[in-house]
Amino acid sequence: MITKVASDVGRIFLLVCLVFSVPPCSTTFRLTSPWGWRCINETCVKQENDGVRSLADLSTCKLTCGQDSTIWPSPTGFLKIAPQTVHFLLESLTLRGITAPTDQVKELVEKAFHIFRDNVGKNIPEGGGKATVMGPFHKQVTSHRVFVAVTVTGRVTRLSLETSEAYTLGITTRGDVTNATVLAGDFFGARHALETLSQLIEYDELAGVLQIVSTAAVVDAPVYKYRGILLDTSRNFFSVRAIERTLDAMAASKLNTLHWHITDTHSFPLYLESLPRMAFFGAYSPREIYRAADVRHLVEYGRVRGVRVLPEFPAPAHAGNGWQWAQKQGLGKLGVCLNQEPWQSYCVEPPCGQLNIINNNTYNILAQIYKELLDIFSPLDLFHFGGSKVNLNCWNTTEEIVAHLEKEGHGRDHESFYRLWGSFQKSALDLLTQANQGKQIPGILWTSQLTEKDRIESHLDPQQYIIQILTNRTDKMIKSLLTKGYRVIFSNQDAWNLGCGFGNLSPSGKSWCINYKGWQAVYDNSPNNISATLTGSSHRNLILGGEAVLWSHHVDDTTLDSKLWPRGAALAERLWTNPDTNWEAAETRFVHHRQRLVRRGIMAQRVQPEWCRQNEGHCYL
Amino acid sequence: MITKVASDVGRIFLLVCLVFSVPPCSTTFRLTSPWGWRCINETCVKQENDGVRSLADLSTCKLTCGQDSTIWPSPTGFLKIAPQTVHFLLESLTLRGITAPTDQVKELVEKAFHIFRDNVGKNIPEGGGKATVMGPFHKQVTSHRVFVAVTVTGRVTRLSLETSEAYTLGITTRGDVTNATVLAGDFFGARHALETLSQLIEYDELAGVLQIVSTAAVVDAPVYKYRGILLDTSRNFFSVRAIERTLDAMAASKLNTLHWHITDTHSFPLYLESLPRMAFFGAYSPREIYRAADVRHLVEYGRVRGVRVLPEFPAPAHAGNGWQWAQKQGLGKLGVCLNQEPWQSYCVEPPCGQLNIINNNTYNILAQIYKELLDIFSPLDLFHFGGSKVNLNCWNTTEEIVAHLEKEGHGRDHESFYRLWGSFQKSALDLLTQANQGKQIPGILWTSQLTEKDRIESHLDPQQYIIQILTNRTDKMIKSLLTKGYRVIFSNQDAWNLGCGFGNLSPSGKSWCINYKGWQAVYDNSPNNISATLTGSSHRNLILGGEAVLWSHHVDDTTLDSKLWPRGAALAERLWTNPDTNWEAAETRFVHHRQRLVRRGIMAQRVQPEWCRQNEGHCYL
Repeated sequence: MITKVASDVGRIFLLVCLVFSVPPCSTTFRLTSPWGWRCINETCVKQENDGVRSLADLSTCKLTCGQDSTIWPSPTGFLKIAPQTVHFLLESLTLRGITAPTDQVKELVEKAFHIFRDNVGKNIPEGGGKATVMGPFHKQVTSHRVFVAVTVTGRVTRLSLETSEAYTLGITTRGDVTNATVLAGDFFGARHALETLSQLIEYDELAGVLQIVSTAAVVDAPVYKYRGILLDTSRNFFSVRAIERTLDAMAASKLNTLHWHITDTHSFPLYLESLPRMAFFGAYSPREIYRAADVRHLVEYGRVRGVRVLPEFPAPAHAGNGWQWAQKQGLGKLGVCLNQEPWQSYCVEPPCGQLNIINNNTYNILAQIYKELLDIFSPLDLFHFGGSKVNLNCWNTTEEIVAHLEKEGHGRDHESFYRLWGSFQKSALDLLTQANQGKQIPGILWTSQLTEKDRIESHLDPQQYIIQILTNRTDKMIKSLLTKGYRVIFSNQDAWNLGCGFGNLSPSGKSWCINYKGWQAVYDNSPNNISATLTGSSHRNLILGGEAVLWSHHVDDTTLDSKLWPRGAALAERLWTNPDTNWEAAETRFVHHRQRLVRRGIMAQRVQPEWCRQNEGHCYL
Repeated sequence: MITKVASDVGRIFLLVCLVFSVPPCSTTFRLTSPWGWRCINETCVKQENDGVRSLADLSTCKLTCGQDSTIWPSPTGFLKIAPQTVHFLLESLTLRGITAPTDQVKELVEKAFHIFRDNVGKNIPEGGGKATVMGPFHKQVTSHRVFVAVTVTGRVTRLSLETSEAYTLGITTRGDVTNATVLAGDFFGARHALETLSQLIEYDELAGVLQIVSTAAVVDAPVYKYRGILLDTSRNFFSVRAIERTLDAMAASKLNTLHWHITDTHSFPLYLESLPRMAFFGAYSPREIYRAADVRHLVEYGRVRGVRVLPEFPAPAHAGNGWQWAQKQGLGKLGVCLNQEPWQSYCVEPPCGQLNIINNNTYNILAQIYKELLDIFSPLDLFHFGGSKVNLNCWNTTEEIVAHLEKEGHGRDHESFYRLWGSFQKSALDLLTQANQGKQIPGILWTSQLTEKDRIESHLDPQQYIIQILTNRTDKMIKSLLTKGYRVIFSNQDAWNLGCGFGNLSPSGKSWCINYKGWQAVYDNSPNNISATLTGSSHRNLILGGEAVLWSHHVDDTTLDSKLWPRGAALAERLWTNPDTNWEAAETRFVHHRQRLVRRGIMAQRVQPEWCRQNEGHCYL
């Protein structure tokens, strides 16, 4: 039902139609369009093709029209693009050479180049771009050859908070040869450079061929080190293919952290070789399980795309299904309040569940889990302990825990329970460090009762822990965290909770997650500005970055892409570029980037009628 | 990464594991699950399989547990289901015979049977259901044979407001033969019966085979005659494949009208053979065009699935792009205010555009358009004229129209413009009737200024027009329409606008479309109750039904399914069954139906964590 545009045939018909006007061309209407675009004052303006002035395809026009071309996120250093493009065939896009300090780095660059080349190919629509480039009336036009050369100076092959990710990219054209040159201090920078290069290439529907900017210079590096997306595989399961697509889209937007909230009270979808009962009892079904090979595959899939896959293993709250086998095996209760009713008394949403933190076997099992996580996610530069809200009433109504407190001579006041929690967290950190051969890994914790102003310093060392902010931007806890010197990651839910707006998140969740966060709100959420408002300082050194969270109450494979994208890309530019301007200045590029994601197979949501995309600036408020 | 369940192998392992407990089975963990379900007090309860009591797969349990089985929408007449299922292989599901008054009806039933059989097959997961059914330790179990016999007594092959759509369905089992018998007064009823039959079949993961209810009796007919979904292909384009999926999902929920809002001011995606310039100038691109063959295909695709495809050609407002070629051809301006700025003065959202209703050529062109629409959508039993809000300032600032009013001796007050509009509508109806060889077709119009209490009777005959309500449920216009005897279709936007909640619908639309309409709100919206509240009477004879509208500002192929489904199914039960109960009574079946839609290839959104589906009744408020 969609008419194919055969590039050469289409061009000829278009010319004939333009010359002879409409009637004699009635049989070819479906192959052509009277519209084209011209760059006027940095805006691509839609005009009727009169056959005299040459008009461009919208994508080609945008490549060289306006300051930032169509690069998303916008580069932070230097960007200069000549207003010319040259055409080329996919076959003539070649890797000229890689200069790298080690074979490992070289191999990574090779893989990244293949991904880059695939992405360039995805611009070509079905039936397009396969013909030799033709000029008017079948005069053949020579296609340019495009060579890419990559130089990486550093040996880093795993992302960390120290990785620079910076790069420079140059494009020059001489005669029929276009050279693209990438220079980066680490592989991750080089990968980003290739992503930028792919965004300086478009397929031109009118010409029926790929176009690349003829001359460009880009110097670029991210503002924030941590740029993440949270995926929750416990409330609903996602296929490995869906997670791959998430990584693809993250790479397209230069996000660098997939925070994998693996388990929760709902289900335990991870198959651990050393503890097979966890998934046996905890998975929703035998089809909804990740094996070690799946995890290793995703970690590597992410790495070559510049994304670390960071595991979260929530404890001591948000742990339930999967832990119920232990009692039968003589280990006592490892989880308490599991699926307990009425749930409102024991947790924030059904099903309930918290770890039994006074049972030594809980720690033995946790040690095994950490060991296996370190193995399959290896090597980790960060680990997420979870640590969000504990329900004190759960512990306070568990005989074993109450008896323990009594035996130890402690009361049953709140602080006694928080001390218990704090001591659990200390043990958890020790177990992780042991599992990592004694090398400490920075741990991330959610904001909770434990991170409150008067409590945090007794339990959490700012050198060891990073705090992820889940509250609203106005929360005073943000101020106390920053003034006490804690490093933070922003996920303030008033802007960066992508699961909101589809009904209640949990039966009790009526009040806090009603409104959908439009891409504009996601884009305009600036951690630095929030910090400046609350503390009077931007605290650039303490704010590591931010993350959009997607709790999966209303999401599985069917809507994962559209919940995350293109809004995740709005987050990406906030964190990579951190522009002084708001969404309005970015809208055209954003809409273009959304089209790019769709071309790459990501089911990103539309954000406006196509008319608005084709008529830039006319859908104003 | 998803482990296949080979039916026989899986069963054997399961039994061995259950007998020998967990450790010896560690290599087969991924193939099995300790969980099963048992029907207790009409609820499927999740239990650990102890190898002694026999537990069912969740889907099989639900088939016979609870009053309505898993049928969606719930039947309105009689429903009785025995609490037994029997297993069968897809290969042994056969059409035994069709009794029908004409070959045309017989052919339709044959097509519907093939669709039914395909749908049954879609229950079988990859790698499942292909083996012979095996009992414990390889003892072969004979599979049942399932025969379907269909009798249709009436000759109707096109849906109309007079079509009954009623059916009865019986299932009986004797020995290893299961007979399903369908009786209906028209093809559409028979099709619905097959849909119901398909919903009395599930694939059992534990047994690795299809299961059908052994004995059942269903007597069913819809409460409302008009049960629709609106698709807007002007703001964004949808592929034919995406529209097919919409029709598939509608059929699964017994909705019967796809209201196709073909054009608007934004674009004109329909290629008309007699007026090729409309799409040439009005389509977003040559790839975003529907040809006559596409339309005919969709009309037939819908028919065999019990869905009429109803065209809307909006006029005199909401017409713009696609009309701009006429002036060059010497026909004068057919459209006015096209893309005019500032748009706020001339329309409700950019781009602006209204027909020039004082130019005779406008009527000539409209006659041609109607003629071709009647041809490709043939035969029509209803036609949608559009007719929503006209911007008077647009006409009042168009010299030609103002001069016309002056010439005719009319003022420029509001009523003069409404008279002009009323007279346009009269002509439009006449042109449609002429195009239909003099046979009048009932016309549908949106609520607008023209349908207001003191104006409607001067312009619109209640015998000729049906009014589609686009306002809120509290709008007084609803009362005036019903008390004046107009037939209505409900699309009150406070519940049945599925496009809301994803940011502003239009730049000016801030106030009215912020909140997402959750499936619960869609379900609980009862036209009869609204009527009773406003007028004191349920006006059952005037309320033809309802329709969920999806304006496509933020939708294209990527999210069409998830915006419409499963919420469209909530609408479907409201209109088919119109239960006295609210969403809470329907939740379990609804969630099950959502899974069914996904199995059939519809990317329907999740509405809760899988834990809630597996633990019915535990995610209460």
